[in-house]
This record gives sequence, C-alpha cells and structure tokens, in this order.
Amino acid sequence: MKVQEQMELLSRGTLEILPAGGLEEKLKAAAKEGRPLRVKAGFDPTAPDLHLGHTVLIEKLRQFQHCGHTVVFLIGDFTGTIGDPTGKNETRPPLTHDEVLLNAETYKEQVFKILDPKHTEVRFNSEWLGNLTAADLIRIAGKATVARMLERDDFEKRYKGGQSIAIHEFLYPLVQGYDSVALDADVELGGNDQKFNLLMGRQLQDAYGKPQQVILTMPLLEGLDGVNKMSKSLDNYVGVAEPAKEQFGKLMSISDDLMYKYYELLTDIDLDEVKAMHPMEAKKRLAATIVERFHGEGAGETARNGFEAQFARNEIPDDVPDVTLESENGLLWIIRALTQSGMTSSNGEAIRMVKQNALSIDGEKVVDKDYQLKPGGPYLLKLGKRKFINLTVS
Amino acid sequence: MKVQEQMELLSRGTLEILPAGGLEEKLKAAAKEGRPLRVKAGFDPTAPDLHLGHTVLIEKLRQFQHCGHTVVFLIGDFTGTIGDPTGKNETRPPLTHDEVLLNAETYKEQVFKILDPKHTEVRFNSEWLGNLTAADLIRIAGKATVARMLERDDFEKRYKGGQSIAIHEFLYPLVQGYDSVALDADVELGGNDQKFNLLMGRQLQDAYGKPQQVILTMPLLEGLDGVNKMSKSLDNYVGVAEPAKEQFGKLMSISDDLMYKYYELLTDIDLDEVKAMHPMEAKKRLAATIVERFHGEGAGETARNGFEAQFARNEIPDDVPDVTLESENGLLWIIRALTQSGMTSSNGEAIRMVKQNALSIDGEKVVDKDYQLKPGGPYLLKLGKRKFINLTVS
Repeated sequence: MKVQEQMELLSRGTLEILPAGGLEEKLKAAAKEGRPLRVKAGFDPTAPDLHLGHTVLIEKLRQFQHCGHTVVFLIGDFTGTIGDPTGKNETRPPLTHDEVLLNAETYKEQVFKILDPKHTEVRFNSEWLGNLTAADLIRIAGKATVARMLERDDFEKRYKGGQSIAIHEFLYPLVQGYDSVALDADVELGGNDQKFNLLMGRQLQDAYGKPQQVILTMPLLEGLDGVNKMSKSLDNYVGVAEPAKEQFGKLMSISDDLMYKYYELLTDIDLDEVKAMHPMEAKKRLAATIVERFHGEGAGETARNGFEAQFARNEIPDDVPDVTLESENGLLWIIRALTQSGMTSSNGEAIRMVKQNALSIDGEKVVDKDYQLKPGGPYLLKLGKRKFINLTVS
Repeated sequence: MKVQEQMELLSRGTLEILPAGGLEEKLKAAAKEGRPLRVKAGFDPTAPDLHLGHTVLIEKLRQFQHCGHTVVFLIGDFTGTIGDPTGKNETRPPLTHDEVLLNAETYKEQVFKILDPKHTEVRFNSEWLGNLTAADLIRIAGKATVARMLERDDFEKRYKGGQSIAIHEFLYPLVQGYDSVALDADVELGGNDQKFNLLMGRQLQDAYGKPQQVILTMPLLEGLDGVNKMSKSLDNYVGVAEPAKEQFGKLMSISDDLMYKYYELLTDIDLDEVKAMHPMEAKKRLAATIVERFHGEGAGETARNGFEAQFARNEIPDDVPDVTLESENGLLWIIRALTQSGMTSSNGEAIRMVKQNALSIDGEKVVDKDYQLKPGGPYLLKLGKRKFINLTVS
C-alpha cells in the first residue's frame, strides 16, 4: 500500500497524531527500509471482558496490520500484579501470575477475532519491568519532573481539588513510558485519556537514546445512550462475547448520529457510501458487520433476518383500540369476533383472511376458521399488517 | 542512668523531639525491658571529610551511648551509588562499591574518635535497598502522597518558584524512611533540614505495622563567622582531621556568643560552669576539649601551650611608637638605640636586659649586647613583655 493510502486509512477517526507529520515520516522510512512498523497498544489485564469501546483501538491496530505493520499487543501485567498499594481500593486485589495468564487467553480469544495473530506480538510488561530494581526505577524517575506530571489533567484536578494522589501513581506513567523503550515502539495508540502517558513514552525513549514513537489517540466510544462513554457499569455497552442476537438488537437501538460515529470508529466502510443509504438500512448493515466480525461469516445475515422477523412480530401501534364482546355458550367464534369488532366487514372476508394466514392472536398465527376464544383476555388480535385490537371476551 | 538524667542530657541543644513525651516513653520502656534503644542517624557516603558541623549529631549519638543505648550509624550508599539520575549534576557521579567502602573506612576513623565502636552498628542501606525490586518501591511509594511531599519546605519553594523537581527526589525520602523500617529504629536523629524525612520514617514504620520511632532534630552549627552554616565551601569550618594547632587557633577566633553555642552542641560540659569562667579562659577550654577529642589525651594541653606561646610572640599593641635614630659610621649600636629611644633609662639597664633575653627584633630574640643595626627598617623592637618601638635607622 502506498504511504498516502495508508495515511488516509490510519488517520480515519483519530483525535491526534503527534508530532505533526511524524506518522508519514515513519511510514516512508518503513517503506524505504522494507520493514514493518512496531505499533504498540497497552491493555489492562484486569478487564479482559471486552466491549466495542475497547475495540476502537483494536480496529485501528487491525488497520495498521492491513497496511503491513506489526502490532504489539501489550498486557500490563506488571502493575496488575501489584494491585492497589495504598490498600484503599479493595476492588483491585493484586492478580496472581496464573490469573494474568488466564486473562491473557481470554483477551486473545476476543482480540484475534479482529487482529491477525500472525502479525501480532502479545507481550507482558512484567518481562522487563519484573526484572527492574528499585535503583533502576529511581533512575527512570530522574527523567521526569513533578511539575510536568502535575500537568496531567486528572492529576492537576485532583491536586487542586485537594484529593490525594499517592506517589506510586506518578510512577505508573513512567513505567508505561519505559515499555516503549523496551519494545522499541515506532507508534503507540491509546485513548485520549492516555495522551500524557503516550507522550511520556516519547520522553523516555529520547532519554534512553532511542528514536521517539509517534503517538496516535482515538476518541472514547460513546455507549448506546449516545451520551456517556461506553462502559459495563453504565450498561450502555455491546460486549464482544455477547450473542449475535443481543449485539444486533443493541446496535439497532442507537441514534442515527451515533451510528455514523460507530461506522467511523469501528469499521473501514466508506462513510460517503453509508450516508447515501437509508438510515435504517445503514444501521442494519453496521449491526450485521459487527456481528459478522465476532460471530463469523453468515452470522450478520442470520442476525439481521432474525431481527427483522422479531421486529415484524413486535410491531404493535401505540393506539390499539380496546374492544369487549360477549361469548355465547361460554365461547366466542373467531370469525364473529373479527366481524363484530369491525376488523372485517363480513364473515366471508374474515374466513378468507384467516385461511390466508393473516391472523395472529398474542403473536401466534391462527389459521383455523373454527377457532373459539374463551372468556377473558385481553387478547391481542392482529389482522394483516396494520389492524390491531385488544379484545376482552366477557 | 535514671530516665530523668538521660532526658536532661539527651534534650540538651535539641531543636525538637517528636512526638512530645515520646522519648521519655521509649527510655522508660527500654529501662523496663532491660534493652538498649536503637538510635539511627544517616550519613552521606560522598562526604566523609567531617567537620564540627557533622559532629553535632555524632556528639548527640555519643550521649545516647553514654546512656547505654546502641547507635546505628547508617551510611546511605544506596543512593550514593545511583548518583544524579537527571544527569544534570556532574559533580555527583555514581560512587562505586569500592569507593563506598573506602569512604566508610574514612568515616569510621573519624567517627570512632567520638563514638564507642563496641556500641555502634555501622550499616549500609544498600543491604536492604539493593535487594528491593521496582515493584517493592512502587508499593512503598503507595504509602505517601504527592501533596504531603510538596509540603516539604524545599520542595514547596522549588515547586512554587517554578524550579524543577525530578520525580526520583520524591522517592529518596521514602527509601530513607524505609531504612527505619528495615532497621527497627527506636529513635532517629537528624539536622533540622531532615525533619520531614525523619517523620517519613515514622509514617512508613506505621504503614508496615512497626512501632514508630521518636525523632530528634539538632540545629545546624554556625561556622566560624557565626553567620552561615558551617561548610567547607564557605571556609568557615573546623575539620575533624585538621592538625591540633589549626583546630585550636580556629576555635580561639570565634565570638563569645558562638562559643556558648559550640559548648552546648559539641560538649556536655555544664553551661553554668562555663558562664562563670572568664570568656578567654572558657574559649581555651572549649578549644582544648575539642582538640583532645580528635587528637588524643594531652593534645589539648599541648595545643593550648603552643597557642599561648604563639599568641605571646605575636602580641603587638596597636599603638607602637615610631622612632628614628641616626647611625654612626654606617651602623647603630643596639644599646644606644634602646637608651636613646627611651626604652631603657641607661646603657647599663639596656645591657642587663639584653643579657637577660628580654629583647627581640622583628620577632627574633637578640642576646648579643654588641649587636649593630644597619640603616633601614623600620625594625620592631620588643623589650620585656610590653615595650615596643618601630625603629627606623637613618
């Protein structure tokens, strides 16, 4: 792929690529030297249950692979095995080595639905950070300043707001930056909230006399509500491991605006093409594309058909009229019910339509013209595509 | 020694003992359990050339030993072998292990002139800090907050003044505090500038579930100028390894006010006794006491005698009269000079005094009654203890 084409694909949906012109330079150098770029992204080993929010980065990594580059999928197990050293956060117990490995397998299972395993290095940062001594860490800490660290948005807010920052929190961006030194990363990807840490990677690579990585930030994906960041705790997410039907249904529930963002960040389908489509159709295509990705070929089509059938069944207007009819000898003949309620103009028409498979009662097709309703209800009668009544039999 | 007597000696000259009542409690507990307290003080391995400023702490340690306690003389080689990780301070190259050991020997040589080696543990903090992993250090760093660290006087000033603080500087108080954990210190001594770090020791001991040390701070010793802190670079110091004569002379040059401070901080001589003495005599006793300490028994007395002799020789009044006398045949007989200048009332008196060894010319004794002065001068003639003239021979 030509550098210009790569740039177009790789820039899609990004928030920032720093330094300006840096990525193009790296791509040109890689093309000239006939080597792939090393594209790093770090993942938290404590949350291997991925949702679409996580896959924004992974999709971008896939695009790098599509351009011929190598993805370094970094599992940050070093800090994960430390847990919360302040002891305040009991929901973050230290992970054991076995838990890390187990989580890594779960990660791979999900991630390799998007990434090509042959061009992915899965690495654990305990590999180099685990061998680091306290003296080494002190030397690394000498490469950055307190003032610079307090410029990080969240630290600044907490410091000014009088909220406590434990000193080890200053060390985490440093060790994350040191990962880029150890991995010889050419590019590092992250969410916008990671920008500071990604830049720390550049700073440390420079301090250690290595070429500096280009950093690329992606926006956070809004959840299904279109307002908040996608997250499990807000229950506005689509899980990577969810059943196809769930994924499809959730994606069909989003607004049109959000749909276009999802297209941009989660697919590489041409956006002009999408905008030329009917929004409902576009949404079905998005949902099918994503289901297909996580559930294999054909799964998108199947989910779409299932959804449409379900949707058709469930299409009940808000203003269904209530009708009450009297039974005779303890029952009510369905043909008389249709005619007396005014859904048909004659018993003949009613019999014909039932025979033509046009009637459903409470979502179930009824084709027997001799069907008798028992007193009770209300029963939801649907005739053809648009006629509904709620029928109570007295 | 009774706890009350210990308290009196140990409190002498201190700035602060924290927490209030803490030392007395520790002393009582130690007496009850029949065990010595572990009294820690840390020293920088890069500056083993001690002066009296350093010995303020060492003198206090000696007093603890005098009370039966154990001194832990801690050489901070761990950070010394790291050097300056920012690379900005080229005057702080990392020390090698051999240099540390060499410096330690020089330390011991000087320090054991004050301390009793039998009740002193000399320790190197690389012993435990050298085995610490980066993960361990992160755990320690979780025990303190950024806000608390920025409350340290010098950090606060630098942060507010826009001067850079490297992040490893936040780690040094932590590892120093961890030393107290590793050493099970009951008491830690330091200069006033160390108060924050000493308190960090308490904080970390608490975090690690250990009893908290009492901290004891000593004032900085003013240098010979009585204004600035004693330091080599200001050349206002008395070196521990300096010759006795130098030490005595330097100490005799200080003001009376400063002398009392030196008595308080460098000796345990009763201050009321000192104040009852003539200041000149008191100063000589101080100088002799300190010389004796570093140069062995009798050295104080010898230095005092030497100083007095030197001083006597050099005792020239400010108002020595100028006298001009004419030569005869190109020379001037010393006896005529003494009589004509009025120093003696007759040639007979002059001859008798020269023979009695009472005459010096320009600091040299002259006992030859036939001595002839050449034209020139002025010559400083001293007769007996108090008669001086500046004699020009024309």
